[in-house]
Amino acid sequence: MISNNNNIKEPRITLVGAGPGDAELITLKGIKALQTANVVLYDALVNEELLEVAPADAVKIYVGKRSGDHTFSQDNINQLMVDYALNYGHVVRLKGGDPFVFGRGHEELEFAAEYNIPTQVVPGISSSIGVPGLQGIPVTHRGLSESFWVITGTTTAGRISADLYQAAKSNATVVVLMGLHKLAEIAELFKAEGKGALPAAVIQSGTTVDEKVAVGTVDTIAGLVAEQGIASPALIVFGEVVSLHPQYKLVKEVYDVVAGR
Amino acid sequence: MISNNNNIKEPRITLVGAGPGDAELITLKGIKALQTANVVLYDALVNEELLEVAPADAVKIYVGKRSGDHTFSQDNINQLMVDYALNYGHVVRLKGGDPFVFGRGHEELEFAAEYNIPTQVVPGISSSIGVPGLQGIPVTHRGLSESFWVITGTTTAGRISADLYQAAKSNATVVVLMGLHKLAEIAELFKAEGKGALPAAVIQSGTTVDEKVAVGTVDTIAGLVAEQGIASPALIVFGEVVSLHPQYKLVKEVYDVVAGR
Repeated sequence: MISNNNNIKEPRITLVGAGPGDAELITLKGIKALQTANVVLYDALVNEELLEVAPADAVKIYVGKRSGDHTFSQDNINQLMVDYALNYGHVVRLKGGDPFVFGRGHEELEFAAEYNIPTQVVPGISSSIGVPGLQGIPVTHRGLSESFWVITGTTTAGRISADLYQAAKSNATVVVLMGLHKLAEIAELFKAEGKGALPAAVIQSGTTVDEKVAVGTVDTIAGLVAEQGIASPALIVFGEVVSLHPQYKLVKEVYDVVAGR
Repeated sequence: MISNNNNIKEPRITLVGAGPGDAELITLKGIKALQTANVVLYDALVNEELLEVAPADAVKIYVGKRSGDHTFSQDNINQLMVDYALNYGHVVRLKGGDPFVFGRGHEELEFAAEYNIPTQVVPGISSSIGVPGLQGIPVTHRGLSESFWVITGTTTAGRISADLYQAAKSNATVVVLMGLHKLAEIAELFKAEGKGALPAAVIQSGTTVDEKVAVGTVDTIAGLVAEQGIASPALIVFGEVVSLHPQYKLVKEVYDVVAGR
């Protein structure tokens, strides 16, 4: 194997969760991994300020699924990660949120293992918990919710997950990631369970300067999102805990007036 | 109001998630909050190394629910938090995991709001995601799990959560926090759904030097936990993703032999 310089570096890979967007929501361990990176492979939704933590001479490559005219498949990313580790040393694979919350992190670890490259994992703040929490929506709260259920809105097959049908029947706080384009369809599942009045919220770009929030009910949320021009990336929260959001009091008053007319 | 010194300090409260145990799994933002703390009120399960991040002259008080011969109720903690903020300035309320994952964080924010004390929130790595992930169990994985459901094993009433009955019927990865003392009872719910062979794991003291893991199935997990002397704090994971744990291959071989005899 030919090294890119005279210092032979041991290949290794660290999967690091960058958190939901705010650069300061990465862990201290994530910062330390970046400080020793020879290469950083980073996704869309990763705050680019974090790249400055890596050494100035580290290679920094954007591998978001769509990058200009190039599309990186998961296979491409796996191979790049291994090739860079073998040739450059320490690869930090920097992923939005947590590497294992719909992040395909385990697939990357398995691929690295085939090449006997040592791997480490640094968890990240998942937007599923941190983003509602910072908006004033706790995923659990005594008397309102004893559980929360986090579901992808986008399955491999492009359909909504079958788990959403079960979730609509449950008492859990339901958090849907990557589901904004299916919001109306998902809301219908809750309506079919008689939950039109259940509080619901959509949060775009949580913890960043582009953050926007719509707070309403299952019946009103799709309309509010359209009115307010909320776009992806966004997450959806269904559950009584949404009623704790400061905007909800107003929503409730309007809803009661409309329901009582 | 009498201040404790001549510098009048503005009262404020920051709820900080300390993460699952490893001190380096706190966020950079959490570190910055601690660096400006006048008072730190910390829970059981918080890594005490983090107290060293706060200024040497900061007041540091353990408010774990059982502290020697003293028991802190949530009301005590709320009042302490407010009293210290009014008299000392910046109170960091340092909580294990994330403040809103069964952490009663929202109750503390509401109490502070009654006194018009400004509050901020810094999310933390929830053990529900980070601990399985570091053990080699991703909470989601293509082809195995499109969702994960996090449930408390200990409700206010001391019963197991009704949500667990629904969860046992679901296809979600199910993560139970604070449920080890109810493990046999919870496993029965899955058995009643014909899921005796579903992979299951229990992880004690994840990300700390005391970490222990038992990997088996719904049928075997309670016996393994007893055999291995696994104790609280621990979390339980039920789901096909547990089969990705490095120890599971052996479990599977033993299970097949036993099932086939």
